[in-house]
Amino acid sequence: MTNSDLDAVVAAVRERIDPDEAERRALAAAAAALESRVHDALADLPVDADALQVGSTARGTWLSGDRDIDLFVRFPADLDREELETYGLEVGHAVLPDGHEEYAEHPYVKGDYDGFDVDLVPCYDVPTASDIRSAVDRTPFHNAYLTERLDDDLAADVRVFKRFLKGIGAYGSDLRTEGFSGYLAELLVVEHGGFESLLRAAADWSPQVEFDPEDHGTRSFSDPLVVIDPTDPERNVAAVCSAENVARLQHYARDLLADPRESLFFRPDPPALDADGVRSHLDRRGTTAVAVVFDCPDLVDDQLYPQLRKSLTGVADGLDRRGFDVFRRATFADTETDGEGQGEAVLFAELSVAERPAVERHEGPPVHVRQHAEGFYGAYEDGDDHYGPFLDGDRYVVEREREFTSATGFLESDALFDVALGKHVESTLKTDGYDVLVGDDVAALAESFGAELGRYFAPRP
Amino acid sequence: MTNSDLDAVVAAVRERIDPDEAERRALAAAAAALESRVHDALADLPVDADALQVGSTARGTWLSGDRDIDLFVRFPADLDREELETYGLEVGHAVLPDGHEEYAEHPYVKGDYDGFDVDLVPCYDVPTASDIRSAVDRTPFHNAYLTERLDDDLAADVRVFKRFLKGIGAYGSDLRTEGFSGYLAELLVVEHGGFESLLRAAADWSPQVEFDPEDHGTRSFSDPLVVIDPTDPERNVAAVCSAENVARLQHYARDLLADPRESLFFRPDPPALDADGVRSHLDRRGTTAVAVVFDCPDLVDDQLYPQLRKSLTGVADGLDRRGFDVFRRATFADTETDGEGQGEAVLFAELSVAERPAVERHEGPPVHVRQHAEGFYGAYEDGDDHYGPFLDGDRYVVEREREFTSATGFLESDALFDVALGKHVESTLKTDGYDVLVGDDVAALAESFGAELGRYFAPRP
Repeated sequence: MTNSDLDAVVAAVRERIDPDEAERRALAAAAAALESRVHDALADLPVDADALQVGSTARGTWLSGDRDIDLFVRFPADLDREELETYGLEVGHAVLPDGHEEYAEHPYVKGDYDGFDVDLVPCYDVPTASDIRSAVDRTPFHNAYLTERLDDDLAADVRVFKRFLKGIGAYGSDLRTEGFSGYLAELLVVEHGGFESLLRAAADWSPQVEFDPEDHGTRSFSDPLVVIDPTDPERNVAAVCSAENVARLQHYARDLLADPRESLFFRPDPPALDADGVRSHLDRRGTTAVAVVFDCPDLVDDQLYPQLRKSLTGVADGLDRRGFDVFRRATFADTETDGEGQGEAVLFAELSVAERPAVERHEGPPVHVRQHAEGFYGAYEDGDDHYGPFLDGDRYVVEREREFTSATGFLESDALFDVALGKHVESTLKTDGYDVLVGDDVAALAESFGAELGRYFAPRP
Repeated sequence: MTNSDLDAVVAAVRERIDPDEAERRALAAAAAALESRVHDALADLPVDADALQVGSTARGTWLSGDRDIDLFVRFPADLDREELETYGLEVGHAVLPDGHEEYAEHPYVKGDYDGFDVDLVPCYDVPTASDIRSAVDRTPFHNAYLTERLDDDLAADVRVFKRFLKGIGAYGSDLRTEGFSGYLAELLVVEHGGFESLLRAAADWSPQVEFDPEDHGTRSFSDPLVVIDPTDPERNVAAVCSAENVARLQHYARDLLADPRESLFFRPDPPALDADGVRSHLDRRGTTAVAVVFDCPDLVDDQLYPQLRKSLTGVADGLDRRGFDVFRRATFADTETDGEGQGEAVLFAELSVAERPAVERHEGPPVHVRQHAEGFYGAYEDGDDHYGPFLDGDRYVVEREREFTSATGFLESDALFDVALGKHVESTLKTDGYDVLVGDDVAALAESFGAELGRYFAPRP
């Protein structure tokens, strides 16, 4: 491997992701037209405000084909919040007559302009990042910080790095991905002076890894990757980034450096599986699959996936605690509503042990702890529904009837609600019920989740 | 419960265990005749020696029906060991013309006299217990210590306590039982001033419990019960007594005090099981029984049982480590040779899990430990006999083929010899082979081990 191999790969990637002149011009024209519409709309308002384009399309770090234009409308910092929201929406609807309202920290208008997805977001024009009144007020400072530091070469490296993160599945700070945000990607490229030097550094990271570009951090974090926000000493830009995604970047950084190839940037998913494919894997593996299937709660992904993961952990712990050893697990959700109602969500687990004996061992206190020992012995002295009490070392032991001898028995019982479930998952299961699939019957999931099952049975870093 | 209830029970027990006048006279006559024979035999030897009756029959603490007479022949302390052995055997054979030689610390003669089992043991006549040249030299000091302290009432209480220990299965300092020796039983009764006060104390013990009658102990022990030998400050008389037998005494002491009854002193074993009985328990319990069956190594019990237990622990750990969860286990041995060769020995285990999937999870190093991580990934990067490597948190994981998918597969393989086995058990298994029984097939063991299986499936303290 020589540098020139990696350079050649990067050049080939750039051929595919760098916006060409026409795309740049079209975007600049759209942005200018939108800004001018904002100024027109502002002219009718009794406040002094201005428009500011932010985000990757403002900084030349977008990938060809991205169609997002973010326009922030900055209102005076002393405006009260209600007025800000009213004026913000007024401007939004004036600029994007066909737009609709969405809600982040405030309501804002989202719409289409000339083929671009436009967000028109009101914020406060505060003097420094430490004066922000709402989280979105920070964005203009991010924009200013990066714009000042990104020359054309670095912006190109940011695009390459973002494409790399997409290729390896680590791009996005949404709570489904728990990966690297665009802002984080840009800060890392700036901090390391380029894509290749960032890769070389990441290949050798030993988390916890901390960067503090402005050397102004004031608190400590427990996250594996810490990048102190240059505009906010108390914020870790990488707070959402999971240990797994940090490891993923490390793994593929090494991989790309050792064997530079374009395919890592545009990695296809493993092929989707059909029901036969699922059965064939289960047969080869000898595990028993179980699945709890229910109507997907109607939540945004950032609420849904944490709840699904929490529920999956709860169910898996509940199975493990009862002796049904979970081999691997995953959760799937069909969030594409197709007009025919919500899709399904699945808590999926492969078990090493799906059945247990009729008896379970129940350890009592040491005999010498007299009061407890007498209580325990008295409770089990009579009756023929158990074996013992007898002694194992200095303790009483009984062998009593096991509550659940099969994993499905547990999953189909009310005991499922004793485990920690996500709030809306729990209410959905309680209210609408759920199905339990076991063994080869889970193969039916391939109809809705063939792609997910394809990834599950072809796992890779 | 009143004291008089217990007193009545003790009185009834004494009716059954106290030697009557005729038994006492017969024993005294036999002992006197044997002593006189010893003196006659010693008269022919060129050394000054004397005879001393020791043991429970010397101290009035034997239970009716016991037929053991222990005679020690004390030779001068400056005699060399070879002469001691020669003279000892000479006296032995003269006194017990039909006797045979056995071997403890020295060889000695054992034989029958007038229906009594007589041990004629040579020892050194040392001035104090700290001058002993061999372990048996201590016995006369034990005898002197107890004889001085045991009046008729205490001797009677010793008999009752010994019968109680037999009834609950905790009597005997052999390495099969790991219980209370006769000497330990006598010391405990003397220390507590009687049977009932000993029971009341034991019911409240909180091990480690230590007694030092002569207040001269010089070292510390980790055993649950410590009784410093009055004749040897460095010796714990209860060293062999297991935590389980200490707990057993505590349990039954409480039981007898709460509900005094004669039956605890003469507790029958649970009924033996036949093959149908074994199958019926296994069916009810839903476990999978496995048994490793082999020719019982030709060892004395004190060597055999520790080896069997070590082997059982080794095999059970080996099963557990491979995911075949051991529910309960036991070892049985048929040490009664009947002229048709040695009996069988069994390592028996009930399993909660007898089969595992074809795959097993194999965790690699954290990705950030670069050298190990690269080595692990490289080892599993290619090939289609495994799933992964993939990431779980910051670690690599692969799912590879499991070596043993069934407990019997493991037990029938050479991997059985990777676990810690007793030395002679290991050589027997290697040389003579072994059978593995599984599931209902273990019911065949009821033919030789019906009593043991009866106890196994009716466990009690």
